[in-house]
Amino acid sequence: MAFNKILLFSTLASFLSLGCVQAKVHYHRWEITYQYKSPDCFNKLAITINGQTPGPTIYASQGDTIVVEVNNSLLTENTAIHWHGIQTGTIGTPWMDGTEGVTQCPILPGETFIYRFVVDRPGTYFYHSHYGLQRSAGLNGMIVVKVPEGFKEPFRYDHEYNILLHDWWHNSTYDQSVGLQMPGNQFKFVGEPQSLLMNGRGRFNCSLAVSGYCNASLPECTPLTITVAHGKTYLLRIASITSLSALSFEIEGHNLTVVEADGHYADPLPNVVSRKPGTPTGTRLFNYYGIPRGRVPPTILPSGPLWNDTDYRMMQSWATRAHPNFIEPPPAQSDRVIILLNTQNKINGFTRWSLNNVSHDLPHTPYLIAMKNNLLHNANTLTANNSETHPWHLHGHDFWVLGCGRGKFNPETDPTNYNLKDPTLKNNVALQTSGWIAIRFKQIIPACGHFIATSNLIFSWVWGLCLKKVLTG
Amino acid sequence: MAFNKILLFSTLASFLSLGCVQAKVHYHRWEITYQYKSPDCFNKLAITINGQTPGPTIYASQGDTIVVEVNNSLLTENTAIHWHGIQTGTIGTPWMDGTEGVTQCPILPGETFIYRFVVDRPGTYFYHSHYGLQRSAGLNGMIVVKVPEGFKEPFRYDHEYNILLHDWWHNSTYDQSVGLQMPGNQFKFVGEPQSLLMNGRGRFNCSLAVSGYCNASLPECTPLTITVAHGKTYLLRIASITSLSALSFEIEGHNLTVVEADGHYADPLPNVVSRKPGTPTGTRLFNYYGIPRGRVPPTILPSGPLWNDTDYRMMQSWATRAHPNFIEPPPAQSDRVIILLNTQNKINGFTRWSLNNVSHDLPHTPYLIAMKNNLLHNANTLTANNSETHPWHLHGHDFWVLGCGRGKFNPETDPTNYNLKDPTLKNNVALQTSGWIAIRFKQIIPACGHFIATSNLIFSWVWGLCLKKVLTG
Repeated sequence: MAFNKILLFSTLASFLSLGCVQAKVHYHRWEITYQYKSPDCFNKLAITINGQTPGPTIYASQGDTIVVEVNNSLLTENTAIHWHGIQTGTIGTPWMDGTEGVTQCPILPGETFIYRFVVDRPGTYFYHSHYGLQRSAGLNGMIVVKVPEGFKEPFRYDHEYNILLHDWWHNSTYDQSVGLQMPGNQFKFVGEPQSLLMNGRGRFNCSLAVSGYCNASLPECTPLTITVAHGKTYLLRIASITSLSALSFEIEGHNLTVVEADGHYADPLPNVVSRKPGTPTGTRLFNYYGIPRGRVPPTILPSGPLWNDTDYRMMQSWATRAHPNFIEPPPAQSDRVIILLNTQNKINGFTRWSLNNVSHDLPHTPYLIAMKNNLLHNANTLTANNSETHPWHLHGHDFWVLGCGRGKFNPETDPTNYNLKDPTLKNNVALQTSGWIAIRFKQIIPACGHFIATSNLIFSWVWGLCLKKVLTG
Repeated sequence: MAFNKILLFSTLASFLSLGCVQAKVHYHRWEITYQYKSPDCFNKLAITINGQTPGPTIYASQGDTIVVEVNNSLLTENTAIHWHGIQTGTIGTPWMDGTEGVTQCPILPGETFIYRFVVDRPGTYFYHSHYGLQRSAGLNGMIVVKVPEGFKEPFRYDHEYNILLHDWWHNSTYDQSVGLQMPGNQFKFVGEPQSLLMNGRGRFNCSLAVSGYCNASLPECTPLTITVAHGKTYLLRIASITSLSALSFEIEGHNLTVVEADGHYADPLPNVVSRKPGTPTGTRLFNYYGIPRGRVPPTILPSGPLWNDTDYRMMQSWATRAHPNFIEPPPAQSDRVIILLNTQNKINGFTRWSLNNVSHDLPHTPYLIAMKNNLLHNANTLTANNSETHPWHLHGHDFWVLGCGRGKFNPETDPTNYNLKDPTLKNNVALQTSGWIAIRFKQIIPACGHFIATSNLIFSWVWGLCLKKVLTG
């Protein structure tokens, strides 16, 4: 097979001196509305941007300024849009991060909020509502930041494609949130998604629809086909905005090489990479020129790793190192160590994610205006030995992944094995089942990141501002 | 039949000097949440107060103060609660009226708003969300204001019951609002309600449910039974918070007497009193003591007036006069006449209710803070000769109903027939099909009412503040 180079680009950075390159300003005007959509052939209300879900892809070059005028045309719901992976904190505009309750008050129905921020690193990013479950309801999209003209990435490719992955439910996010917020035995889990969407397209088996409108012949839900040519190298910009599912991504019969993650060039890395059984497989056609579009491959669908085989993931996560030409070593010492034990917990009878036994409620006044949360009490867990893969994401800053491991973090011995030489910079990292992960970050300006939360976890901060107490799980 | 006195009390006022009667303060703490409810046996998400829909009835005596702490525990939706019929404008607390976009900013998720107002007239009132379609989704309830101890109403009764009428749909208010807000041919009408609820109970025929969960044996949807004794007189406090349906109310084999409307005693009036065909009939059991509860009456259900026979309604509306002992005549002259032609219209391709061809959008800054709307252009109508019954309600003030009629209002001749002698004071009046109605009100304090809107209509204001232009339809 001539075609064997596919580069994975899930968020990419560069430390280029921009010199005299002219930065541009990109204006976008978005109207947020509910619309009936059938992304997987099943008709339901989705939250859209200018009538579309996913929303429009934002394209820019490093150093450009993005201006997005967000008009909230929802009837009774507020909103806020977060720019995932954009270092709003580092570049001096933390109030443009779009995190309701943290960096801003929500945008009310009928109101307009104008986001303005600089994209200071090339890479693949995404945006989504950071309010309630609106992200899951369709309010999301991609951001592609290219290197400026005349500059080159440390890898070669002929063409590129964007791939946005999403898990999709047929009931409303209202149904979901009410069930999740019920106390005690009334708690109702959302269950596995009905479909996996790729670039807003999926394929639900309409014969399984017990109610509602499902039409398998809608053009809207024609499966995504990516057409490629023999002998060419393709850069795939992949973003996952799933709410529940931890996905594996593979292309049958092809090797994939990770070249970038979270806006930082990676030492080229062969790639392999689920959540609990029941997550549907999202199969799409990878079509070579010359083969009629839509023809079903004669091969049997590869099964992929087992849902609970997290070794693949842990391995890939740990094996991702900074590109040799782009190593930026972390501080050898941290000023402060904060250990956060992440569990599913019962808090006042309600099922909640918790950190050191404390469940999170956003304050009425956004954190950026008034930081006033304490982390108290020792940790317990809802169900013994219950743990699953969960991503952690830092807003506004990048961090170094210093180490990870199985079982409980040992503050005496584990830090001696930290990688302080060539860890990659990231802003998103998966904490694996019953494992721990240590990160380190420099706080550049006095604004604080916050985390979206599984399992034993350690964050090693240079110095912390948001978290007032250091507790050991 | 010994039992023939039933008094209808739909909102009641008194101009008593309270003297040394001690006024009380009634505190209520409400938590607004979405909950699964089956008021008509069909399970759906409803907006509740302390887990209930309708919400708790507020009981007070004339002159008392009501304090309601509203905690918005919805996930992404704002709210605001309006106190229908309470003269918040007249009693100096217009900012407590609860009308989002008019008197207050919305209450955000996680926030608390404390309403505090005086109930200055005995009568039957109600409250409901004044934000989006939340009222229809279940956020409503009754307010009963009694005469102070030692005082008497100008009629006699032995017992009383509250009756809250509501039209109920099985799809969500999100579905409804998206359909209503679509442009051109995509406009989708909500259709007739699936059930009529009486005190939050209805009865849907579960065999007609094509999807969802419907269970006819739930105690929650046992039909309401009102048990009465022979020879006694009952005061029925009736409130309708329907969104679409104009209802007729009758009790088989009994005469009803209207004794009060909108907080004002009426000259006792025999009562008879629909929207388009298709509104389900909401039948409940009116049970005498000694007859086992739940037994189905042997008689055939009376058919009631035809949906388009609005003569009954017009007659009753016009025949309602102030109680002889409580006549408060209107000013003989108005300082200003404003004629408002109310039509269904196409505005920029969208189907909208409109006044003099202008459709209403709430400004971001509530009116009470910044009144800046102009009414412009001449009137047209979406469909020729299309007209239906629609209620008009004035917030914060009462008005006199001076006249009403069929056809187009004639500003030359119709005012000569105004009733300036004994019109009843109201805050709510039904405008009948292709008719007009003239009202007059005194603006007590410089705050303005606003209207929730059908057909040719004239409001005669003593002086207007909100409406900047006077136009003739």
